Amino acid sequence: MSNGDIFVGEIVGTAILILFGAGVCAAVTLRYSKARAAGWVVIAFGWGFGVLAGAYTAAPLSGGQLNPAVTIGIAVDTGKWDKVWVYLLGQIVGAMLGAVLAYLVYLAQFQANVRRTGTTEGTADEPVPTLGIFSTIPEIRSPVANLITEIIATVALVLPVLAFGLTKGLGESGTTVLIVSLLVVGIGLSLGGPTGYAINPARDLGPRVVHTFLPIPNKGTSDWGYAWIPVVGPLIGGALAGLLYNIAF
Amino acid sequence: MSNGDIFVGEIVGTAILILFGAGVCAAVTLRYSKARAAGWVVIAFGWGFGVLAGAYTAAPLSGGQLNPAVTIGIAVDTGKWDKVWVYLLGQIVGAMLGAVLAYLVYLAQFQANVRRTGTTEGTADEPVPTLGIFSTIPEIRSPVANLITEIIATVALVLPVLAFGLTKGLGESGTTVLIVSLLVVGIGLSLGGPTGYAINPARDLGPRVVHTFLPIPNKGTSDWGYAWIPVVGPLIGGALAGLLYNIAF
Amino acid sequence: MSNGDIFVGEIVGTAILILFGAGVCAAVTLRYSKARAAGWVVIAFGWGFGVLAGAYTAAPLSGGQLNPAVTIGIAVDTGKWDKVWVYLLGQIVGAMLGAVLAYLVYLAQFQANVRRTGTTEGTADEPVPTLGIFSTIPEIRSPVANLITEIIATVALVLPVLAFGLTKGLGESGTTVLIVSLLVVGIGLSLGGPTGYAINPARDLGPRVVHTFLPIPNKGTSDWGYAWIPVVGPLIGGALAGLLYNIAF
Amino acid sequence: MSNGDIFVGEIVGTAILILFGAGVCAAVTLRYSKARAAGWVVIAFGWGFGVLAGAYTAAPLSGGQLNPAVTIGIAVDTGKWDKVWVYLLGQIVGAMLGAVLAYLVYLAQFQANVRRTGTTEGTADEPVPTLGIFSTIPEIRSPVANLITEIIATVALVLPVLAFGLTKGLGESGTTVLIVSLLVVGIGLSLGGPTGYAINPARDLGPRVVHTFLPIPNKGTSDWGYAWIPVVGPLIGGALAGLLYNIAF
Repeated sequence: MSNGDIFVGEIVGTAILILFGAGVCAAVTLRYSKARAAGWVVIAFGWGFGVLAGAYTAAPLSGGQLNPAVTIGIAVDTGKWDKVWVYLLGQIVGAMLGAVLAYLVYLAQFQANVRRTGTTEGTADEPVPTLGIFSTIPEIRSPVANLITEIIATVALVLPVLAFGLTKGLGESGTTVLIVSLLVVGIGLSLGGPTGYAINPARDLGPRVVHTFLPIPNKGTSDWGYAWIPVVGPLIGGALAGLLYNIAF
Repeated sequence: MSNGDIFVGEIVGTAILILFGAGVCAAVTLRYSKARAAGWVVIAFGWGFGVLAGAYTAAPLSGGQLNPAVTIGIAVDTGKWDKVWVYLLGQIVGAMLGAVLAYLVYLAQFQANVRRTGTTEGTADEPVPTLGIFSTIPEIRSPVANLITEIIATVALVLPVLAFGLTKGLGESGTTVLIVSLLVVGIGLSLGGPTGYAINPARDLGPRVVHTFLPIPNKGTSDWGYAWIPVVGPLIGGALAGLLYNIAF
Repeated sequence: MSNGDIFVGEIVGTAILILFGAGVCAAVTLRYSKARAAGWVVIAFGWGFGVLAGAYTAAPLSGGQLNPAVTIGIAVDTGKWDKVWVYLLGQIVGAMLGAVLAYLVYLAQFQANVRRTGTTEGTADEPVPTLGIFSTIPEIRSPVANLITEIIATVALVLPVLAFGLTKGLGESGTTVLIVSLLVVGIGLSLGGPTGYAINPARDLGPRVVHTFLPIPNKGTSDWGYAWIPVVGPLIGGALAGLLYNIAF
Repeated sequence: MSNGDIFVGEIVGTAILILFGAGVCAAVTLRYSKARAAGWVVIAFGWGFGVLAGAYTAAPLSGGQLNPAVTIGIAVDTGKWDKVWVYLLGQIVGAMLGAVLAYLVYLAQFQANVRRTGTTEGTADEPVPTLGIFSTIPEIRSPVANLITEIIATVALVLPVLAFGLTKGLGESGTTVLIVSLLVVGIGLSLGGPTGYAINPARDLGPRVVHTFLPIPNKGTSDWGYAWIPVVGPLIGGALAGLLYNIAF
């Protein structure tokens, strides 16, 4: 695979992943969305099928890694680091692009994120905070616990991908892409409770940058104080999975 | 594939798609349905498995495109336009047939769509508007925003289908049909919030024609003022996906 | 396939199907069940994965038809009727066996189906009717409309199975079994609202016989007046699908 | 497969299974979890995709049995007992490791399991019992009925796995792993209502040991009086499935 193919593939694939992922968070969060308050099962399947759509599309060009933690895990396992920067660059650009696309899909909803006076006298709906649509927010803010959560959840993603997915060729088999996407659904359902499962530095950082600059009414804080945890945790988790795989398999 | 096979395949496949899709909307909307108010996850999986059923059935005859946006995307990419009219004609006829079948499945429920006086003195359930069972209705009516939503959501459908699905032969592999159907589930979960995700001109136009003529009590407006957006948006999205695929892949 | 293999395969497979199907209806219906009131999506996936489990198990022995409507559809299409009686006999015996197994799994819950006096003075939970765990009950009782619903829903099952499933060999490919099971999930979500989607004469008749004889407290009526519709409707639907397939494909 | 590979594979795979399974129970049970009260469908899919993740990872090393009931079922069918102890040892060690990992993922949530005084005067949220996150608890305590439930549910797991899964090579085909994981989703949806579906002695016993020793505030009883049922029931079910398979297939 040429650097150009990898770059384009990772941009397109990660953009689709974030379009679906930020999209489903917008769908359940924003007023005037048909999926408002549709629950955690919708979030988990939305992100998982975002992996399906993105990896499926990117597979012929770049193999569809879409996640710096996966890229680092493969590099630690194989010892090949020369193309890592191309993957990472594509992933972060793609994540920003995807966040902008999700914003455009929900443009009218974002613009309507203002105080709404109810029909009953004295009642009003307040605008909703929007950062949770773009990036992760922990339920309990505790750097050590949050880091542990992200590290273990990322190992639970990258170790199965290494153990089976990539040795079988992610780009050749539709079944493998499907299984990895259901694996991501499972991580969301099971391990997403405490931090919202970044498990992907690009998935969190790119949309957070975009959230900082988008002109959304009442968008609330972009919470940069937390931003290092969903970057550092998944990178440690990816490297750890690479090491474990190299030793055990 | 002969024109006759394509025509029959697209009619049968699109009819099944709309039977499932309009069916699931009837299931969650109408009184006296066991799935009443079952939520957005049911809608999204119902439409997705409608794609599974329809494409699965049509695959041996026509390849199972079932969507003018997909047909246009393939034509823009490959430059072959000679059979496009057969696909489009089959799709629109099939969509109308499917809407009639869904109406028949929920016949007793549609006939019971009248004012129901409750057992408690003074209470009554009002009939429900029925257009949302047949065609899409935006949450916020804004032509520009609605068009953008439909365009991006359709690119998110057609680009993955081009990038992987069709090059692998939609008709040969059950797995590909399965993956495309889960992709449609994902689009519903993630990108359906603002407009109800037509992403298919036949899916919206055919059932809207049928809704206009069916003798449903209290059926409400067929809203023809909005009808151009779920036709034009997906056509632009399909063509755009064909262009993007041709350039990037 | 020998008659013995077919008979055993259809008994085991249909028993597993009904164990899962009646089981999931018990799970959402009965008091003291962890899945109580878990909703329509649980019903539809429970029945679908019952098809997965049953067909998967029966495939090496009998091909895993598990449904007289499928068997009739294949016979109408192929013109081979000599083994139909073996399939049908196995299916009805298996359906009765499966209903007994589901009763045993929920034995303590069925025995607890009595009036429960609440802790708050004067309140009490009444026993629930149990027929809906075993057989289908229409929301609106209308023989013509109920028959139409069952016929169309059965065509929507058998036509895709004929068009793709069986030509690829149901017993050879795990993917085909998976796709058929998701098709059944889709039929439940989309077309199950009016009658509870029998789409299988054995699935309704076998458990109804068992319900008539089981010693369940407060079990309520077995409603034999409705019993012919979920038998006749699916048989007509299966034959119609066989005819349509023979003509169109 | 060497004993070392089997041992490592079963430890890693079972640990991942329990990480997902105990994780999803923590996700819906504990306060300050984004998936709190997300319902039975989340539980069933979380456990099922835990099987996907664990078996997928373990497949190249040990075949990914992850369950003493499956191991016993295979041994009864094939008559080969010499490696059974390696599988069982790995499974129980892995189950304990997975329970510790799930505890670490939800560390902050477990530590916050204390009485919370509400903002409204006089109201307070009480700590939740935590055993249900680790091990199964029956809805109605009745040894005979609970045993019957676990035996039948385990046969419904092991018989399909024997009939199709393992003869096709669990380690070679991603599709087989996927189907088995959806089979487990189905067992949860349909047969999990009465006892919480252990269907795996290691899944219940390992986490119960861990629950006994973990320093969780207000963790409640570890309920050792019930512990024998989710061990004995699945072992009987696995052996019975092996016998049935050996006779019928």
